[in-house]
Amino acid sequence: MVKLKEQGAAPRLFLDDLHVGQFFASGTHPLDEAQILAFAQAFDPQPFHLDDAAARTTLFGGLAASGWHTAAVTMRLQVESGLPFEGGIIGAGGEISWPRPTRPGDILRVESEVLEITPSRSRPDRGMAVVRSETKNQRDEVLQVLVAKLVLPRRAAD
Amino acid sequence: MVKLKEQGAAPRLFLDDLHVGQFFASGTHPLDEAQILAFAQAFDPQPFHLDDAAARTTLFGGLAASGWHTAAVTMRLQVESGLPFEGGIIGAGGEISWPRPTRPGDILRVESEVLEITPSRSRPDRGMAVVRSETKNQRDEVLQVLVAKLVLPRRAAD
Repeated sequence: MVKLKEQGAAPRLFLDDLHVGQFFASGTHPLDEAQILAFAQAFDPQPFHLDDAAARTTLFGGLAASGWHTAAVTMRLQVESGLPFEGGIIGAGGEISWPRPTRPGDILRVESEVLEITPSRSRPDRGMAVVRSETKNQRDEVLQVLVAKLVLPRRAAD
Repeated sequence: MVKLKEQGAAPRLFLDDLHVGQFFASGTHPLDEAQILAFAQAFDPQPFHLDDAAARTTLFGGLAASGWHTAAVTMRLQVESGLPFEGGIIGAGGEISWPRPTRPGDILRVESEVLEITPSRSRPDRGMAVVRSETKNQRDEVLQVLVAKLVLPRRAAD
């Protein structure tokens, strides 16, 4: 199954194939209350992620997904349809922010732009790309901004 | 059950109760291969998070947890035993890095230090604390560093 999928997929990109300003768009992921509650129970069991009535009395004003849930769904979208990078998506770190809460019923997608490309000085087989990704909902509201440092392989020299 | 737990818990801290340099330590969370695979299947389905043999041929050199899994477990530790903040742990964003991979068998815990405390100018009932948290394993190796901006309530004026 994996093999068939790989055969039909677009070629994967090395660091050398990227350019600053390059844009990528992912598919979509509909997020419902059941997913929000399951993630919160496992990893972020706070009232505003677990119970809509309790959430109404907090800063969130209603049930909201954990920011880490938004980050995790973003990663799934990037892996499946967002960033077709050779060797996968390997992050060394980055800056993350959540400008507004992710709500039940939001349909998430990710738009990404390459900001920087830096070949490694010490390792000629790899380099770093800085990629800024906005996770948006179906109303184009930005739920998360992640500026990530990603490690990519380079094409072998001729 | 929640009520009993709350009755026995230490008092929760407002922004006014924090000081720069204040230290917090969480309990521990043992991470096994089953947890790593389950998270990866749900949110980060890449070979180095799903299959030890495949992972050995990658930069990771063996099965590693998704960085977002390390972040999610860190959040659970902070909520349950790390940061006893009034109103819960509400993050606006932050900087995250993963200096080394999280491995099956790692026992995670979090050490946190308050770096900055900034009352809101426009809203006297709240403010921002910058908290630096290191997620470590049982060998004191740092797996994740998160410098988070957290929103905390202030005590009501007399």
